[in-house]
Amino acid sequence: MNNYKISIVTIGHEILIGQIVDTNSAWLGEKLTETGLAPYSVISIGDDEDQIVDTLQSLSQTHDMVLMTGGLGPTKDDITVRSIAKFLGVPLVFHEEVYERIVHIFQKLNRRLSESHKTQCFLPEGVEILHNSMGTAPGMLFRKDGFTLISMPGVPYEMKAIFQESVLEKVILPLIHKNIIQKTLLIAGKGETEIEDVLQPVISTLPPNYSVAYLPGLGQVRVRLTAISDQKSDEQSAAFDHYISLFEDILGTSIFGTGDTNLEKVLGQMCLHHQLKIGTVESCTGGNVAARLASVPGASAYFTGGIVAYTNEIKNNIVGVNGQILETYGAVSEQTVVEMVRGGLHILGADIAVAISGIAGPTGGSEEKPVGTIWLAVGNKNHTETKKLNLGKKREQNILLSTQAALNLLRLFILRYY
Amino acid sequence: MNNYKISIVTIGHEILIGQIVDTNSAWLGEKLTETGLAPYSVISIGDDEDQIVDTLQSLSQTHDMVLMTGGLGPTKDDITVRSIAKFLGVPLVFHEEVYERIVHIFQKLNRRLSESHKTQCFLPEGVEILHNSMGTAPGMLFRKDGFTLISMPGVPYEMKAIFQESVLEKVILPLIHKNIIQKTLLIAGKGETEIEDVLQPVISTLPPNYSVAYLPGLGQVRVRLTAISDQKSDEQSAAFDHYISLFEDILGTSIFGTGDTNLEKVLGQMCLHHQLKIGTVESCTGGNVAARLASVPGASAYFTGGIVAYTNEIKNNIVGVNGQILETYGAVSEQTVVEMVRGGLHILGADIAVAISGIAGPTGGSEEKPVGTIWLAVGNKNHTETKKLNLGKKREQNILLSTQAALNLLRLFILRYY
Repeated sequence: MNNYKISIVTIGHEILIGQIVDTNSAWLGEKLTETGLAPYSVISIGDDEDQIVDTLQSLSQTHDMVLMTGGLGPTKDDITVRSIAKFLGVPLVFHEEVYERIVHIFQKLNRRLSESHKTQCFLPEGVEILHNSMGTAPGMLFRKDGFTLISMPGVPYEMKAIFQESVLEKVILPLIHKNIIQKTLLIAGKGETEIEDVLQPVISTLPPNYSVAYLPGLGQVRVRLTAISDQKSDEQSAAFDHYISLFEDILGTSIFGTGDTNLEKVLGQMCLHHQLKIGTVESCTGGNVAARLASVPGASAYFTGGIVAYTNEIKNNIVGVNGQILETYGAVSEQTVVEMVRGGLHILGADIAVAISGIAGPTGGSEEKPVGTIWLAVGNKNHTETKKLNLGKKREQNILLSTQAALNLLRLFILRYY
Repeated sequence: MNNYKISIVTIGHEILIGQIVDTNSAWLGEKLTETGLAPYSVISIGDDEDQIVDTLQSLSQTHDMVLMTGGLGPTKDDITVRSIAKFLGVPLVFHEEVYERIVHIFQKLNRRLSESHKTQCFLPEGVEILHNSMGTAPGMLFRKDGFTLISMPGVPYEMKAIFQESVLEKVILPLIHKNIIQKTLLIAGKGETEIEDVLQPVISTLPPNYSVAYLPGLGQVRVRLTAISDQKSDEQSAAFDHYISLFEDILGTSIFGTGDTNLEKVLGQMCLHHQLKIGTVESCTGGNVAARLASVPGASAYFTGGIVAYTNEIKNNIVGVNGQILETYGAVSEQTVVEMVRGGLHILGADIAVAISGIAGPTGGSEEKPVGTIWLAVGNKNHTETKKLNLGKKREQNILLSTQAALNLLRLFILRYY
């Protein structure tokens, strides 16, 4: 798409020795790719002045840009900053505006500044400061003979904030002289291939400056539409919105959200909006559906609780599943999950209950009900819906996929009846 | 410790664009560090012949060894293999012994070979084959002018098998002319600093070829003792075992296992051994304790199930916590978790029950009970023990730490009374 040579350099001994996994570079790689720029390489090096200077000197010969993370901040010594100054051949000078910002942040938090925060304000001469809305260590931008160096802290949420608030708009997009419009639709209940197939009629009509990416996850797919053009215009925005609305028409209720969210957050918002209380009755998922619901701050406003009915005794004694039904149809059956929903509604004080029973594996299957057979049900006092999944042999994956399917079934039920 | 210069090179476009996070290099970095070798850098590059050849040529000038992963296997084209041959200046030749092994694997699986499997057997002349016990793509070892190149597939379990079964013993340890004895103790319920303090008297007596590493995780610390010597000897093994036994004497029941295991697996083994059934009654952890227990294959033999009692109504109606106690002491109190255990034992058909109630946050705290106040209890029909945690303000972390603490409390209870 273009020939800009950009690499990502992450600094930190803890990455090299495998103490932490470098997720920053994966995130930056994805963000660059979204703009149509592919990173040429990702290089992780130690907190070592010679190595940092050598790496920068070598990359600056062949690259247009290096995005660097790590080695900044009050708890690190100033190796990265010193190395950059050495590479640029400039002295470290005190940056008053950086210090004032730190003082301001600490006054608001009512905390005392330490000496190390002052040290942090000695930065290479001529640096352009990139505002850090999430912490005290600023990002930095340097330009030297057509080579651009961006240095960001290694703390992921600080790095992401600086990248999104400053680097993308101010540096990367102007560099490639492009305007990007992008939207990500989150889909549950449909596989990647199925989504590709149903979208094909629209995709075949997309202009050449549009691209579609399918990013599959466990039990969900992110569909990202990107339009890259030379300049911003209202026409382009309108055209983009038009294509998104065509996608939305086709994918309908399979879309559970846009951008960065997840099913449990979306469910939470729906429950709050409709003033609904929900409860869970789980067998094979063993508490994972409840744990996902409870992970959302404020979940106690709509999640009443759940039963992990791992044994038939608990299904029978606590949830009230008829013993005859368990005996006749078995614990993994449509009849049982329907009874689990009815029992759950009765005892959990919930408006809607979801139930899951299945054979997570790796053993415990039969010819009639192989490992991976999962029954789901969701219902309120008037309606009940069920769904059967035929999954694979991997326990962990079966638990995660059933959990995701249960949350999605809850979502579709609320959409339909409220 | 020594001056060998070793870097890790991972190959794959999907790493650069952030589609997958490169966990292979973190794993290899940790394994190298365990031998006393620190990786100099980690470099991720694309599936591109020129880039691979350039990278190898440049590294071979300055490095003793490169560990390379990715770009091999039947679904990849042969760019990596071709690039290596080009770098070495040798032709690709058909390797009969590799082909025979693939034929043998496929006969056992009763599957048909495809043409691509034959292509896969054309490897650079003079390569030393490193056996792959988990797949068809072999690892490869090349030596050229004092430079060693090891190429492994990118599939993590295949890479790990080749590294552990061939690379470590045959290449790395002979390279550094060392014998390594190592053991990792897994500790719960004690922080890193506390462990360092109590072990200090033993650590100060360790010979200079011994080292101790503390690897903290959420609610657990791994303590790794390493002895590196020039040769294997029974005396050294005996001395190592002696130091380990001193560690064990000091850390006692804080040690929940060795090597690669986790609390839920250890608990599972204890329950099976003592023929115990366990159940859970959770409030703030929202099903995470149950989900951890249920994650172990075969958990249904000892985990009966649980209640996620998010509301006071469920604590009262299902678990049977006295309404007066809830009103007098509140849901987050020692009295309530003790009642939750008693109720759990009664309704879950379990020999032992564990209960958790706390304020996970980020809001919901009071002056008396700030966010992060968590009460735990565990008991059987004769004994009950309780524990209070004072954690921080982060919901996710509070949930994970309380879950870990609950599992550890269960473990200590079983150790004490069974």
